Amino acid sequence: MYTKNLKEFFHPESIAIIGASEDLTSISGKPMKNLMRSNFKGKIYPVNPRYDEIEGLKCYDSILDVPGKVDLVLIAVSASRLLAIMNECIEKDVRNILLFSSGFAEIGESGKKIQDEVAKIALENNVRIIGPNSVGCLNVKEGIPMGFATSLESTNGFKSGNIGLVSQSGALGFSVFGMAQERDLGFSYVVNTGNEMGITTLDTMEFMLEDEDTKVIGAYIEGVPNGRQLIDIAKRARELKKPLIILKSGNSVIGREAALSHTASLAGSKETFQVIAKQYGIITVKDIDEMIDVLQILSRGKLAGGIKLAAISNSGAAGIAMADFSEEFGLILEPLQGESKVKIEATIPSYGSALNPIDITAQALKEQHILTDTVETLAKDNNTDIIIIQTTFGGILGEEICRKIVEIDKREKKPIIVTVTGTEELTGKGRKVLHQNGVPVYKTTYDTMLAVKHLADLSVFYNKKSNLSRQSSIPSHLVKAEYKTRIWTEDKSKELLNQLNINVPKNTVVRSVGEIERYVENLKFPLAAKIISEDILHKTDAGGVKLGIQNIEGAKQAFNEIIEASKNYKSDARIQGVLLEEMLNDSGVEMFIGIKNDPQFGSFIVCGLGGIFIEVLKDISVRHIPIDKEGANSMIEELKGHPMLLGTRGQERSDIEAFADTLVKISDFVHQQNGTLKEMDINPIVVLSEGEGIVALDGLLVWDVLESAYLVSN
Amino acid sequence: MYTKNLKEFFHPESIAIIGASEDLTSISGKPMKNLMRSNFKGKIYPVNPRYDEIEGLKCYDSILDVPGKVDLVLIAVSASRLLAIMNECIEKDVRNILLFSSGFAEIGESGKKIQDEVAKIALENNVRIIGPNSVGCLNVKEGIPMGFATSLESTNGFKSGNIGLVSQSGALGFSVFGMAQERDLGFSYVVNTGNEMGITTLDTMEFMLEDEDTKVIGAYIEGVPNGRQLIDIAKRARELKKPLIILKSGNSVIGREAALSHTASLAGSKETFQVIAKQYGIITVKDIDEMIDVLQILSRGKLAGGIKLAAISNSGAAGIAMADFSEEFGLILEPLQGESKVKIEATIPSYGSALNPIDITAQALKEQHILTDTVETLAKDNNTDIIIIQTTFGGILGEEICRKIVEIDKREKKPIIVTVTGTEELTGKGRKVLHQNGVPVYKTTYDTMLAVKHLADLSVFYNKKSNLSRQSSIPSHLVKAEYKTRIWTEDKSKELLNQLNINVPKNTVVRSVGEIERYVENLKFPLAAKIISEDILHKTDAGGVKLGIQNIEGAKQAFNEIIEASKNYKSDARIQGVLLEEMLNDSGVEMFIGIKNDPQFGSFIVCGLGGIFIEVLKDISVRHIPIDKEGANSMIEELKGHPMLLGTRGQERSDIEAFADTLVKISDFVHQQNGTLKEMDINPIVVLSEGEGIVALDGLLVWDVLESAYLVSN
Repeated sequence: MYTKNLKEFFHPESIAIIGASEDLTSISGKPMKNLMRSNFKGKIYPVNPRYDEIEGLKCYDSILDVPGKVDLVLIAVSASRLLAIMNECIEKDVRNILLFSSGFAEIGESGKKIQDEVAKIALENNVRIIGPNSVGCLNVKEGIPMGFATSLESTNGFKSGNIGLVSQSGALGFSVFGMAQERDLGFSYVVNTGNEMGITTLDTMEFMLEDEDTKVIGAYIEGVPNGRQLIDIAKRARELKKPLIILKSGNSVIGREAALSHTASLAGSKETFQVIAKQYGIITVKDIDEMIDVLQILSRGKLAGGIKLAAISNSGAAGIAMADFSEEFGLILEPLQGESKVKIEATIPSYGSALNPIDITAQALKEQHILTDTVETLAKDNNTDIIIIQTTFGGILGEEICRKIVEIDKREKKPIIVTVTGTEELTGKGRKVLHQNGVPVYKTTYDTMLAVKHLADLSVFYNKKSNLSRQSSIPSHLVKAEYKTRIWTEDKSKELLNQLNINVPKNTVVRSVGEIERYVENLKFPLAAKIISEDILHKTDAGGVKLGIQNIEGAKQAFNEIIEASKNYKSDARIQGVLLEEMLNDSGVEMFIGIKNDPQFGSFIVCGLGGIFIEVLKDISVRHIPIDKEGANSMIEELKGHPMLLGTRGQERSDIEAFADTLVKISDFVHQQNGTLKEMDINPIVVLSEGEGIVALDGLLVWDVLESAYLVSN
Repeated sequence: MYTKNLKEFFHPESIAIIGASEDLTSISGKPMKNLMRSNFKGKIYPVNPRYDEIEGLKCYDSILDVPGKVDLVLIAVSASRLLAIMNECIEKDVRNILLFSSGFAEIGESGKKIQDEVAKIALENNVRIIGPNSVGCLNVKEGIPMGFATSLESTNGFKSGNIGLVSQSGALGFSVFGMAQERDLGFSYVVNTGNEMGITTLDTMEFMLEDEDTKVIGAYIEGVPNGRQLIDIAKRARELKKPLIILKSGNSVIGREAALSHTASLAGSKETFQVIAKQYGIITVKDIDEMIDVLQILSRGKLAGGIKLAAISNSGAAGIAMADFSEEFGLILEPLQGESKVKIEATIPSYGSALNPIDITAQALKEQHILTDTVETLAKDNNTDIIIIQTTFGGILGEEICRKIVEIDKREKKPIIVTVTGTEELTGKGRKVLHQNGVPVYKTTYDTMLAVKHLADLSVFYNKKSNLSRQSSIPSHLVKAEYKTRIWTEDKSKELLNQLNINVPKNTVVRSVGEIERYVENLKFPLAAKIISEDILHKTDAGGVKLGIQNIEGAKQAFNEIIEASKNYKSDARIQGVLLEEMLNDSGVEMFIGIKNDPQFGSFIVCGLGGIFIEVLKDISVRHIPIDKEGANSMIEELKGHPMLLGTRGQERSDIEAFADTLVKISDFVHQQNGTLKEMDINPIVVLSEGEGIVALDGLLVWDVLESAYLVSN
């Protein structure tokens, strides 16, 4: 796609500013002022028929009057004038437009109409547009400010580095950028996409992913513009080991309404996004503070071998807090072992503690080798994945100790994370030393431990072998075919399950009383009888189910009663027949498997236990499709009702293995349908005792009628 | 208690420093330096036989040589010399000692021995001791630093105000103090209690509660020294409407171990503490940041009428975030109504939004009346309890707008809380203006909303009518008596329940087969039969239960079988007989009620549903005793299984009212026993359909044998 390569957009050699103003404090004046102050090496062309020149630069009446090529056009005119200007830009063969103007989709229908029109013209003419409603973009690497965001006016200069940041909201994005720069975090690009008429947050992330200077990507997103694109980005990010951190808002009902009236984007449901994020290794954060904290720890570029921490502190209280948060965040803080313990005991004062957390005592301020020796011992300790240092040391000695930590951090591969608690007056300089050298440092134990949790989770995610490219479990005799029906009733659904090697009771469909005797020959009583009708999906409500049928006479009677009841229930129902099926002898745990489709992300597989677990506790697991066996097992394990399967209350352990296999089979099958399967419901599916497998007792599929899908061949 | 009044301790007119050093950078030199630099108006007496004078002050060989009264003694000598010095202090009639020395309980048995000995002498001689292992205390009101904590060396002076802070940990306490002072929060006292040989965090809180200058109390606690004292403090704090904010650590297993080796205190279980805090209105925070954030909002002294927020922002993203966090924190953010909406619509630009969150747009920076008019409209809006303002406005105009917010905040009674997001360079001055004028301001929406949640929760807690002084529900014919048995088996327990008007099935105890015919005369078959033995508490395991007995013959057979099974189960069991009891006809929801005792806090009442709810989901509610009807209802409502009682899955609604009454009766009864009842178990107790009441099907009480209790009179 033409949009993919934003390189030219962010590295222009000539920039025209349409609607440039000589009032350099206005929205249309600031971009020029910022460019000039940044010593932009390319050409700047102000365009405004009202001026002959601005700040010594010739001002053109129209973009068409500009001599030579224009790489990027900044536009700050009102929405109503935009169409005319667009046409001139196209005539001038402009490829990149950054649109500051507001008055589009965010103000309602009339604005939306102009927005759509401009977007259409841009698409037809291969023009990349960022905005409208953007406050600007910043190429930090080369120091090119393109916009009027207040942060672009900073007189401190910008620190370049490996973080790419993109935000739908300008205020939020540039707040993150500004506050992160205060901590000396370096950036490659900062992009505010605004209404996303053309280029979206996701397009920008795609560009940053392939940019070699960008190693970590942060994004603020209100609504996900394209679910499948996000998943592809996450997969690619995993390949490249470039962490993605997303702050997603619009999670509440009111928040979503506010989002609609803001950048006119539809926020997806929180749960769906969280499922996707967890499954594909996207780090999600709750606010800008946490975003900056995570950018900081990941920008250092050190991953952890695992989740085992060694914690050093000079305050007992901080040690306790680190232990508390380790437990809360699922990290491991185990007592030191063997040689490391002996060495550290010999290093620290006798009234310290070589337990983990390690208490190096206040003595370490004066005798600084206590801390450095301890850290070096831990750096060599095979049982330690991450080293956390907490101090309240201030003053010159505190600053010195921070310098020593920097030296060790440069030498050692293990992540070293620091907490320096205290006022700016006492401890600010020490923190600054760490910031300037890229060592992650936080003011409080909670912030430190939360950042460490994200680092550890991501490291574990990277270390896990991905099975997503494994062979599908779908039998090869399932071949592609045309199909006509929208709804697959129980009989047809069970035929499919059978083909997928998912166990169903032996059954037959009879169309008249006369057929019963011949058809049930191979079935063992007692039987169940159920109405088969595309128009009757709630069979029990319709009186369309009879259980415990003991003989042929009973079957005939059941047939008649079911047909009659069904006709009473819905007189115009098209009835295909009655399913007669063997009843299950064994007891087990009743569960369900379902497929739900999300317009953004595609198919999700859902499972859970029946009864109160679903009805009262809403206890379900959800994953995006496809899943592998590990994913299936994790779905089962996260159910609150999981202990029921393990055999609580004197029951035997259930065949969890078989249920997990079934989840994978369903997932693989649905995945092959490319979204043509809208819904699926296997409910109940009985999980028998270990080794006995599962039995699906009911099934229903709903297809998207007009498309093709994989069908059972015979 | 003598400890209660710490006024003299913190307002000394003469201070002796035993072990004073002329090295003013050492632990024993700093306290003197700090006192001198603070222009302490009282007398300072250095005591150290090695010097004749220090810094121009006469130095004494012994405390006994000091002329005149000594109000407070600071001690920095080693643990081994302490006993001798203590004796001299007592001879000198010293009442207050602040102990910096370490080497006590925190280093193990030998240190613990000295600590206990010193504590004993202090107690016998009415000497208040703070420490050992204290880094000091600070009387902020009068600027008297007593200690060597680094914060006490600040050259910026201290800002006095209405916050009292006490901490077991010196590093943590003075970090909170220092960082809070950076935000211009004012304090009355800061106290570090260390090992708490004498004065504890709770004693200090008691003092601060009654101090008229202290309006808000913050505390860091590792282990609660005295559970009942904490509850009394919380009750008194509620009377006085002085908020208590506690940061409690040692919540994890490893954290508790670390706590043991730290200030040698035993951290109680997190759950118990959380139950107490919630029930008695103590605000709990997770880290020092949240502590400072909450101190800031409560220090302002404005309470909220309710939990309805009006949120103003100049950034759509922040508005969405406010809405998201409102939902998450249980706050209400509803669309504006009526006149307020009309007024605000007329105030803000047309492209803004008068929804709630209200988007005042960036225009409000230049036209500042937009914000001020909006705030004033909301201040008069009856549907708004708390006003939240979020801006990213920086520079001189941003600072100006903050000044205007200060003016409105001074005029209006409603809490006004501000978020100013951005760098120090751009927005720092605006925040400073708000800080200096006591208007709560935070950098991020999350921090703001969490602080607002605490304010709202506390306001709601204060507004609730307390029923704790209401009449007990215990019938008056339950009178105090002596009792001898430790265990009350089912029969005796049910007799008590009956007296408490808690319904039990009609029953009788028979001691021989011969008694059966006569005793069951008044009972209706079918019956249940159960072994009664103090030595067999798990009756079913022992084969001691038979159900569905249809006639007298059956009862006799059951009797014999039960006696035989019980003897086989435990040959030396003392058997009191067999309980014969009518079986319940009606079905209902099986629940349980229990009493658990905590060594710190006393009795807690526990309830929950039976079956998988307790066995698989560990779904229980816990409250400290006593509870009122509202408390009982809240216990029932917080159960995950609550919908079962409301009549899910086609069942009728259960008699929740009767179950709540039963909880109150049990609570009142147990409360009257003054801790002599160790355990109680009513399990199962069947809750019938609405209007039909409850039936307790089994019961067990365990008493503390050697004390007296209230007993059934007949």
